[in-house]
Amino acid sequence: MSIECYYISGSPFAWRALLGLAFKGLDFKMTALQAREGEHKKPDFLALNPRGKVPALTDGDTTVYESLAILAYLDRQYPKKPLFGATPEASALIWQRVMELENYLLGSIGNLGRAVFRGTVDGNEEALNEDIESIKSELALMSDWLGANDYLAGDSISAADLTAYPGLALMARVLGNQSNEKLKIDFLPIADHFPAVAAWMTRVEAMPGFGDVYPPHWKEQKAAE
Amino acid sequence: MSIECYYISGSPFAWRALLGLAFKGLDFKMTALQAREGEHKKPDFLALNPRGKVPALTDGDTTVYESLAILAYLDRQYPKKPLFGATPEASALIWQRVMELENYLLGSIGNLGRAVFRGTVDGNEEALNEDIESIKSELALMSDWLGANDYLAGDSISAADLTAYPGLALMARVLGNQSNEKLKIDFLPIADHFPAVAAWMTRVEAMPGFGDVYPPHWKEQKAAE
Repeated sequence: MSIECYYISGSPFAWRALLGLAFKGLDFKMTALQAREGEHKKPDFLALNPRGKVPALTDGDTTVYESLAILAYLDRQYPKKPLFGATPEASALIWQRVMELENYLLGSIGNLGRAVFRGTVDGNEEALNEDIESIKSELALMSDWLGANDYLAGDSISAADLTAYPGLALMARVLGNQSNEKLKIDFLPIADHFPAVAAWMTRVEAMPGFGDVYPPHWKEQKAAE
Repeated sequence: MSIECYYISGSPFAWRALLGLAFKGLDFKMTALQAREGEHKKPDFLALNPRGKVPALTDGDTTVYESLAILAYLDRQYPKKPLFGATPEASALIWQRVMELENYLLGSIGNLGRAVFRGTVDGNEEALNEDIESIKSELALMSDWLGANDYLAGDSISAADLTAYPGLALMARVLGNQSNEKLKIDFLPIADHFPAVAAWMTRVEAMPGFGDVYPPHWKEQKAAE
């Protein structure tokens, strides 16, 4: 069996899958698609994921897409170094955190990041300011979780951490240098407003294999600075 | 160990958890919260789920909320009659379908249903008509899946079916008798437009235990008709 993971550099969803592979210490091939050339919408890739989205993963005869499905599959196929806990009770909390992050934090981050990145803030200020309030209240809640434990669902890294980290890292990158007079983005840099969250991000970044799956074009830009 | 599931009659998220319990044939207690009396926001329930949302499930000392987390927990704790497949390969497809349904269909159904139910269509027609287009294209895709298999992720019922069914049933109920001249809701009744989806809904309704967890106030209304 050989594992291949298709990604676009900087896609937070693909990054989750790559972090899962890195965390488990599996051998895998990273295949970058060039979004600007529309490689994710070409027939070869659509044969793997008809939605034309990354990540997609192949493992022998198995193909799976949707980032959380990939993490769930990897954990079932390669149970060593569990992503979803060693017991049903641990698994309950990890899945609960994953779904809380998905449903209450990361959607708002996506809305805000896309609007700022694409320049579509005008006319959507009301909804976006609601997203900002949600983000702040969820980051405060994350800080509470991290007051009790080093990671989002306990004392060791889990799928909850890998679900949240890429979206937060992308948010800090996209919004960190932006100012928008119509929006009240008053929670960045994260370290100043939610130090427990920033400290957790640093812990995730220390995970073995983290550097191997860091978005290549972010690395290049850092090197060029 | 005793299992207790807190729900609000008609909540599609709670219904998923109840269907999972029924599917597995577990012994459990259904505890109804009265939304009109705000029972889901009172301290007793907030101690179980600080977000004040249903479902929440307790099983001995374990408490878990978020519907998909409950299904994942139940499958790990009670692996007989699997909801997420008997093999890693089956699990990959089931989780993929669950996440596809969540990410591309059920959010749009929720947006549309809430807007019609709450009377907030005016001014949001553009976004809602996009939701309608998404719903139609996803129902067409579901029909393709159901052309190949009896259920959404294979030849037997799985978490994918239990994820999708309640939202679709609620949609048919909320929107089935509505007309809204500002929206082009041209896909109901489902049986006329997507017969494979309607036939699948009938198959899900034949699942053992389905009637035991059917929303009580829908039963009462049916009886009164």
